[in-house]
Amino acid sequence: MLKNCWIKTSAARLFIRSFSAENNQFFKVEVVSSARKALPTPRKVAAPRFEKKTRQKISDYLKQMATPEIEAQLAPLRASVKEYGDLIRDLKAKGAPKIDVDKAVVELKARKRLLEETEIALAPKEASFDRLKLEDLLKRRFFYDQSFAIYGGVTGLYDFGPMGCSLKANMLQEWRKHFILEEGMLEVDCTSLTPEPVLKASGHVDRFADWMVKDTKNGECFRADHLIKNSIEKLMNDKKVSAEVKKDGEDVLARLEGFDDKDMHEVITRFKFKSPITGNDLTEPIAFNLMFPTQIGPTGDFKAFLRPETAQGIFVNFKRLLEFNQGKLPFAAAQIGLGFRNEISPRQGLIRVREFTMCEIEHFVDPEDKSFPKFAKIADQKLVLFSACNQLDGAPAQEVAIGEAVKNKTVANETLGYYMARCHQFLMKVGIDGRRLRFRQHLSNEMAHYAQDCWDAEILTSYGWIECVGNADRACYDLQQHYKATNVKLVAEKKLPQPVDVNVVEAQANMALLGKSFKKEAKKIQTALQQMTSEQVSALEEELLSKKLYNLDINGEKYPLTPDLINIKKYEKKIHVQEITPSVIEPSYGIGRIMYALLEHSFRQREGDEQRTFLAFKPLVAPIKCSVLPISANDQLVPAMEAVKEELSRYEMSYKVDDSSGTIGRRYARTDEIGIPFGITVDFQSVKDTPFTVTVRDAQSMSQIRLEVPELGKLIADLVAGRQQWSDAEAKYPKFEAAQE
Amino acid sequence: MLKNCWIKTSAARLFIRSFSAENNQFFKVEVVSSARKALPTPRKVAAPRFEKKTRQKISDYLKQMATPEIEAQLAPLRASVKEYGDLIRDLKAKGAPKIDVDKAVVELKARKRLLEETEIALAPKEASFDRLKLEDLLKRRFFYDQSFAIYGGVTGLYDFGPMGCSLKANMLQEWRKHFILEEGMLEVDCTSLTPEPVLKASGHVDRFADWMVKDTKNGECFRADHLIKNSIEKLMNDKKVSAEVKKDGEDVLARLEGFDDKDMHEVITRFKFKSPITGNDLTEPIAFNLMFPTQIGPTGDFKAFLRPETAQGIFVNFKRLLEFNQGKLPFAAAQIGLGFRNEISPRQGLIRVREFTMCEIEHFVDPEDKSFPKFAKIADQKLVLFSACNQLDGAPAQEVAIGEAVKNKTVANETLGYYMARCHQFLMKVGIDGRRLRFRQHLSNEMAHYAQDCWDAEILTSYGWIECVGNADRACYDLQQHYKATNVKLVAEKKLPQPVDVNVVEAQANMALLGKSFKKEAKKIQTALQQMTSEQVSALEEELLSKKLYNLDINGEKYPLTPDLINIKKYEKKIHVQEITPSVIEPSYGIGRIMYALLEHSFRQREGDEQRTFLAFKPLVAPIKCSVLPISANDQLVPAMEAVKEELSRYEMSYKVDDSSGTIGRRYARTDEIGIPFGITVDFQSVKDTPFTVTVRDAQSMSQIRLEVPELGKLIADLVAGRQQWSDAEAKYPKFEAAQE
Repeated sequence: MLKNCWIKTSAARLFIRSFSAENNQFFKVEVVSSARKALPTPRKVAAPRFEKKTRQKISDYLKQMATPEIEAQLAPLRASVKEYGDLIRDLKAKGAPKIDVDKAVVELKARKRLLEETEIALAPKEASFDRLKLEDLLKRRFFYDQSFAIYGGVTGLYDFGPMGCSLKANMLQEWRKHFILEEGMLEVDCTSLTPEPVLKASGHVDRFADWMVKDTKNGECFRADHLIKNSIEKLMNDKKVSAEVKKDGEDVLARLEGFDDKDMHEVITRFKFKSPITGNDLTEPIAFNLMFPTQIGPTGDFKAFLRPETAQGIFVNFKRLLEFNQGKLPFAAAQIGLGFRNEISPRQGLIRVREFTMCEIEHFVDPEDKSFPKFAKIADQKLVLFSACNQLDGAPAQEVAIGEAVKNKTVANETLGYYMARCHQFLMKVGIDGRRLRFRQHLSNEMAHYAQDCWDAEILTSYGWIECVGNADRACYDLQQHYKATNVKLVAEKKLPQPVDVNVVEAQANMALLGKSFKKEAKKIQTALQQMTSEQVSALEEELLSKKLYNLDINGEKYPLTPDLINIKKYEKKIHVQEITPSVIEPSYGIGRIMYALLEHSFRQREGDEQRTFLAFKPLVAPIKCSVLPISANDQLVPAMEAVKEELSRYEMSYKVDDSSGTIGRRYARTDEIGIPFGITVDFQSVKDTPFTVTVRDAQSMSQIRLEVPELGKLIADLVAGRQQWSDAEAKYPKFEAAQE
Repeated sequence: MLKNCWIKTSAARLFIRSFSAENNQFFKVEVVSSARKALPTPRKVAAPRFEKKTRQKISDYLKQMATPEIEAQLAPLRASVKEYGDLIRDLKAKGAPKIDVDKAVVELKARKRLLEETEIALAPKEASFDRLKLEDLLKRRFFYDQSFAIYGGVTGLYDFGPMGCSLKANMLQEWRKHFILEEGMLEVDCTSLTPEPVLKASGHVDRFADWMVKDTKNGECFRADHLIKNSIEKLMNDKKVSAEVKKDGEDVLARLEGFDDKDMHEVITRFKFKSPITGNDLTEPIAFNLMFPTQIGPTGDFKAFLRPETAQGIFVNFKRLLEFNQGKLPFAAAQIGLGFRNEISPRQGLIRVREFTMCEIEHFVDPEDKSFPKFAKIADQKLVLFSACNQLDGAPAQEVAIGEAVKNKTVANETLGYYMARCHQFLMKVGIDGRRLRFRQHLSNEMAHYAQDCWDAEILTSYGWIECVGNADRACYDLQQHYKATNVKLVAEKKLPQPVDVNVVEAQANMALLGKSFKKEAKKIQTALQQMTSEQVSALEEELLSKKLYNLDINGEKYPLTPDLINIKKYEKKIHVQEITPSVIEPSYGIGRIMYALLEHSFRQREGDEQRTFLAFKPLVAPIKCSVLPISANDQLVPAMEAVKEELSRYEMSYKVDDSSGTIGRRYARTDEIGIPFGITVDFQSVKDTPFTVTVRDAQSMSQIRLEVPELGKLIADLVAGRQQWSDAEAKYPKFEAAQE
């Protein structure tokens, strides 16, 4: 992949592993009490006995993901273990007395134990996160599953079931509210089908590609960088491989992100990497374009692609959007929709998929003034920034107020900084763990040549730090590209403080003669001449005068122009406005990735019963807001049940009725598993009261209140929207103590 | 197009033109007063002077779209005009005296005037609907526009701008609430990319096609039925064409829907139709598959398509959904998402597009019990039904209570009837004019062979009656097809009243021998044997015994099986449950079409000023809910403006600030144009009051009230959701009389 052209296709960067020390306030194992308590208890740091498998997992995790601080504490312990390992091998090789060997083994074991205990003590919670348990829950309760499973499934395609679908819809609705509604953005909804010339102009046809290698015998394809990474990791675990080769491999991994096809071919050849499946030889890396091709209409000659991003739909509508905004800058347009990328061999579940929902904003702004009116509102907000400098210096990420970061030029401008702060707010709102979130600045070789600055919101998951949001200042590249391709001016007018006289120099094509010499190309030449700046025309004029010939360059093609083909026109003009091509700040959200990270961050296990797993969603995004549970199957309760359902529907609050025969406690456990935040119980008191009453249980605190049904809908709606907190409800309504749960 | 296979691709049926007389309560021209009034006045029936162009439009409209009742009144008047036309031609041909001719002309003119006046008096409102004016408004305020316009545009692809995007999002949200939330459906979100075998099984690869003809010289493509229709319409308007040929053409048009390729070829040859563009000859009709093809992954051998409907995603997930529903029938799954159809040469704006949003429900039900528990709730609801009988008898549509229609078997079952009633409710909720809505039953030759019954919700627009929703009972076709293709049982278990002993007869393949004889095909044969019913196995056994050979038929391929290849196993089994393949009732909504119809039905012109056009949306779907207008640019008003904006954001109510310098009245007119239902004005009283107050204007009645800002959000949210009516607000809050507007 041509990394420096495309900011959005970068792989997980497993080898940039430092993050801020302040940020490492994780719990070893999050303990969630299953006993009913009135108030949430502070989460305890437990020191449970871990199984060997878990200890190994924690150890592996720390080898990859430890902070520099933790790494500093573990390194000497690892060295001391290695010392005795080497000693024992040495003793055995020399045929030393058994007693000496045994003594050394005892010491080795003690040292190993010290290392393990230190690892457990230092490990963040997610080190012992059990992805299989989460995946089991997600599959069992149909959050999502591989698409077309009954046909064998398709890698990189996922279907969302009722739970996942609702979670996603809630996240999108919040995104729409947080950005489009609150910031007054112009939302558009453009087509996925995109004609080739549009994506040619944007650069995707030529450069949106990954390098792949093929099995020379059966033609099987592998993404080259992934193959190298996996092959080297296999080497590292191979005891027969020399330390020297391992060192070399480690070195390759650290630089892999910046590799081009030649670098990768060199590595594959040097290490003699083969197909991991057949062991056959591999071809040289071949560029594979990641767009899905298709054709529009029946003739077969209208080539098109499925859009790889929603952004281009906004750029091609720029003129209309500017008009809609009464011609004024700045303004932001946004789009929620599908993107498609034909990944070579996708793995990693929802992290790398071929069809995905994305939310993109294009904020158009005067290139000379990227200040943001509301910046003061968020200037004090602290973000964990992992700047390019820190990455190059090997320093950890730092928590910095965004106002400070813009002031000291770490972040390029206020608009970019504002969107980073709003991004942080959004991720917090939906329930991402702030201690597993950082903003990583792109290194200069990762950025497109035209980009000014770029910060990815990365979220820590069991797959490592995953890029979930890109926040980029893309300058005026896209608008200029579409202008070049269509000759439709994509500019805004900026009023000058006072009118200015300017000297205009234009090169006008003599179309009659041009047509004779260049036939169909004449129009293209005329357009190129029209698009020249005054400076370029002056240079052309000079060359025509001196050499009687000017070689016009259009995308690398040369067109020799003689003086008779061109009239140079010069005149003075008073201008009141200046035409500017706006810069664009682009926040781009991968909803599936954020959703997956959210699922990991929301996953909990009950204390003492690791099989009892559940999801602790924020009410805002919870797929179902309420469970509705009759205390018994008695028909007496039916009218109150109906009243509750009607009241909830009136406020558009989703609910799940569980009228099965289990105890209320068991039924709560089932609803906790899918993250239902509020449990509404209809009991015999409910039908005695006029109007009917119900009890409401908050899943977080497990405390309960009683209230009248006609007040229920508004309360739940307010709790979900964050207009009220549970503590407000507790203050307002009588507490309810269940006889049993 | 193979009409009888695919219910969803049918063209507008312009030639079924009767509709219910009761339904024809349209206004001649809807007059909306532009003077400010406290209460809505009853709409007047005006008799304005129409321009010649408008008169012609009304006349043309009535020729195509009149009800039988109107037609009965117009036919004698038309005949009387024709009589004098013929007479005058006759007189002239005979060289009759000028005085006789002139007399006849006076009489002709009088007869023509009578016809015209009667037409105007009888014409429904939409007969004079001016589509160009609506399109101008929609384009100017960026509701939607052709995609990639700066690249020349692509037919059949549309981008929604901020207004259209919001309107669509609001319609989808209401759909989700009305169906998924209120009916407790299981929502899924499946991929658009679909592997070929899935669509092979569903029948789309073989049969989802339209017939096209090509220009024999330049290869240009035309949809055959559209070409015939347009060519005949041209003939009809050609004075040189004989009455006999016109009669023939009319006859073809009436039968065109049922034509196959041979019929169309015969017509094209007989009428000598040519390319309408070049006049060149045309090829025979060729089937063109309407799915967009693509490939998944880099190898090029994984063929896939963009889904032509969302339904298949639900069918392939049936097993998981049934599990999610604890194995119980009935249940409904729903999906909102994109569909793609590679139309041959789409026209008609949003009515026929290549990429569109659809909402589909698959309601799975026991084939032997299609009753619906909540049916009684809607049984009295009246719908305009245009049954197959009525269509064949040339009788008009009738308004019938849905309970009655199910009882007398006009509508096949309660479940289908329930969804038709709910469909009607949804269309009313979003603002479709009930007098321009009917449910048309498919004729038996329009339905797929497996379908039991199908009713399209058709909406009358300036394009004629447009199919916007299909409500079909598809029996168990889809689930069975996917079962045949995958051998994964897609069945539900139905508990038997008491256990039953059954004799099972199974044909087991001798895989060792089968493998030798049939190699790779052996697996396929084994699967086919497993899928046989006991009856089929018995037949096979008999044939093996008598002929020592059985020719197994798999999709037309014959496999000769000898007795040694098969073991017949017989045993008795006690069964407690019966396996059933559910029937599916499928309501399928085309959101773009409904939205276009809604735009036409919401379009209004101000009395006396036809240039002042506006959209009268229901608050529920209005793209923007409120305008916020400061009465002056005075800085004093700023704090109240901020308070209003914050309050509206808290309730997620979208707003548009108009702080330009026009009068309040002018600014209201601008916001009326894009259908903003509530106007909030901040005046000097606003900032005198504590807390701040504002006035709220209802665009429908133009009446105003004053209330405190902290009550504003809830009021607007309640009005939008329909929890309160404007009259409730008027009763609760003091009326505000503006000094001027």
